[in-house]
Amino acid sequence: MNVHDTAVISSSAELGVDVEIGPYSVIGDHVRLGAGSRVGAFCHLGITTGLANNQSLKVGARAIIRSHSVLYSGSTIGDDLVTGHHVCIRENSIIGTGVQIGSRSDVQGDCEIGDFTKLHADVHVGKKSIIGKFCWLFPDVLLTNDPIPPSEILNGPKISDYVVIASKALLFPGVRIGSDSFVSAASVVKNDVDRFSLVSGDPAKRKCDIRILRMPDDPRLKAYPWRFRFQRGYPEQVQEDWKVGEPGND
Amino acid sequence: MNVHDTAVISSSAELGVDVEIGPYSVIGDHVRLGAGSRVGAFCHLGITTGLANNQSLKVGARAIIRSHSVLYSGSTIGDDLVTGHHVCIRENSIIGTGVQIGSRSDVQGDCEIGDFTKLHADVHVGKKSIIGKFCWLFPDVLLTNDPIPPSEILNGPKISDYVVIASKALLFPGVRIGSDSFVSAASVVKNDVDRFSLVSGDPAKRKCDIRILRMPDDPRLKAYPWRFRFQRGYPEQVQEDWKVGEPGND
Amino acid sequence: MNVHDTAVISSSAELGVDVEIGPYSVIGDHVRLGAGSRVGAFCHLGITTGLANNQSLKVGARAIIRSHSVLYSGSTIGDDLVTGHHVCIRENSIIGTGVQIGSRSDVQGDCEIGDFTKLHADVHVGKKSIIGKFCWLFPDVLLTNDPIPPSEILNGPKISDYVVIASKALLFPGVRIGSDSFVSAASVVKNDVDRFSLVSGDPAKRKCDIRILRMPDDPRLKAYPWRFRFQRGYPEQVQEDWKVGEPGND
Repeated sequence: MNVHDTAVISSSAELGVDVEIGPYSVIGDHVRLGAGSRVGAFCHLGITTGLANNQSLKVGARAIIRSHSVLYSGSTIGDDLVTGHHVCIRENSIIGTGVQIGSRSDVQGDCEIGDFTKLHADVHVGKKSIIGKFCWLFPDVLLTNDPIPPSEILNGPKISDYVVIASKALLFPGVRIGSDSFVSAASVVKNDVDRFSLVSGDPAKRKCDIRILRMPDDPRLKAYPWRFRFQRGYPEQVQEDWKVGEPGND
Repeated sequence: MNVHDTAVISSSAELGVDVEIGPYSVIGDHVRLGAGSRVGAFCHLGITTGLANNQSLKVGARAIIRSHSVLYSGSTIGDDLVTGHHVCIRENSIIGTGVQIGSRSDVQGDCEIGDFTKLHADVHVGKKSIIGKFCWLFPDVLLTNDPIPPSEILNGPKISDYVVIASKALLFPGVRIGSDSFVSAASVVKNDVDRFSLVSGDPAKRKCDIRILRMPDDPRLKAYPWRFRFQRGYPEQVQEDWKVGEPGND
Repeated sequence: MNVHDTAVISSSAELGVDVEIGPYSVIGDHVRLGAGSRVGAFCHLGITTGLANNQSLKVGARAIIRSHSVLYSGSTIGDDLVTGHHVCIRENSIIGTGVQIGSRSDVQGDCEIGDFTKLHADVHVGKKSIIGKFCWLFPDVLLTNDPIPPSEILNGPKISDYVVIASKALLFPGVRIGSDSFVSAASVVKNDVDRFSLVSGDPAKRKCDIRILRMPDDPRLKAYPWRFRFQRGYPEQVQEDWKVGEPGND
């Protein structure tokens, strides 16, 4: 255990073995932080509100939570979380294993994020969003949830597995994004996106099947589904599965 | 009064009764913070610059200022302010009662924001912007002010009362947005918007009168002006007025 | 020297004369901070990672680093840096003299930023971006670097000198932006931009030569190249050169 002298740790927080807490960070009541986790400076973990129903913040093993981040009570996060700086995660979200949440990204609460999904910087995930496994959300992607603002309706997008959402895309409330699809940069997605589709524009329209796209530096290689050509950072077994599953390139 | 041991409070700050200051927050000179206000951790209030002309930061009663926020001297803010995390409010702005400013939103100074207006997350309000009462600015809305960048001109947008600006909309310098109008998500507003208009696109164009829009779940109910169907969170008297004012639905 | 009592300063940090460090800031190992620099509250300077190869963070004289900012080891920054709040600068970037980096802007590492370039708020500079001298990047500009996401390719944009990139513009990986050009607000730049061009739209297309544009308040005066009409804040010698270079207005 390596807790900086200046950190403020609630007596009811449960810190696993070999946890490190950086200078001036505040760990509130009922936070459970898994073994080997590292929290940077100026973080506030376990902020409690009425919305969390007195539930703990549970973070798995080996988390890396970078400085100035804020995690509320009531969310459950798997092992191997990595956050950037100035991140915010609100109440009652369920976040899988191996998830990355980039700097200034904001998970606004009551969300689900599947295993090994990566949010780059400045991704804003509105309340009640559902994101599958192995997705990529690039900088400045925004998931909205109110179809008739302002209203009481909270209808977040539903994103299936392996989806790529490129920078500055905006998803309208409740849209369903099929697995393995690709939402181009700066798209405004107002309608559902079919599996294996590449969409772009405002409103986003289907341009092609992703499986016809080739690598820019080698047109013999298919670019998508991306998992058959890009495995860095995923668990070994996942990598093996994806390598075996490689579809025939030309 | 409940000031955390680690907070750094200037001897010239004036804190009202029952104020709470969180861990490690810094309250500078000449800050006036109203009774019952709560400041989270790692905030810095009352940063002084030459631009503030030695004026105080004045915040009314019952403010909730969340962690990692920065408020400069020289601004005057009414009662019942609520901010998210990592917010920044610069000098010499005049902010009304019951205003909400979401996480990472930035009010860049010399702005006016009317009573009960709500800025969601990542809203950027350029210098010299004027926003009316009861407005809604959704995530990633950006108000610009320089028509011929870079220049010395600071000509912020002027937004009237009850306006809704949906996510990722960009307002050009000096545009006037008429009351009760609706700026659609991802619009780029280059020209003035008339009262009761819905605009969308780049450049944003008028699509219809907002009063023809119906609720998605009940087409008998008018969706806009929104205040006749949505009153949550506003003062009781305001709610009463709006309920009385309800125009005849079909 | 004026280091706040609560600041945590590594014994191996090298602070120049008259450096000020605000409350609760953390200055890590091997940080070199030039004379007369001022660091606000809650900053973390000199975060070390494997990517920095044990190199120092070197910041020149008279830096102003505002609160809640994070600067990693391995970057070299010239004199007269000014940052906003909540800024992040990652490893191994080379940043010139007189550079401004606005609030929440993020320089993701391995970037080059030339002298006197100004990034406004919320500018996201992806890894391996190259930005010339005397550029202006306005709020919410995003420079991307992966042409076939996700991949191992990091191919940032290359921006020449005197370029203006207006708010919310998105630059695709590897695009080259010619000197003195103007990228309009909300553009999506997918192709190279020629010198002296104004581009706009999605995809951004050339609309005109910037040299035909006139000041809105005086059509006798050329608006661009901007440096012949706007010199505020640049070094005296630069201002003199630009004044001499003024092309004939009508």
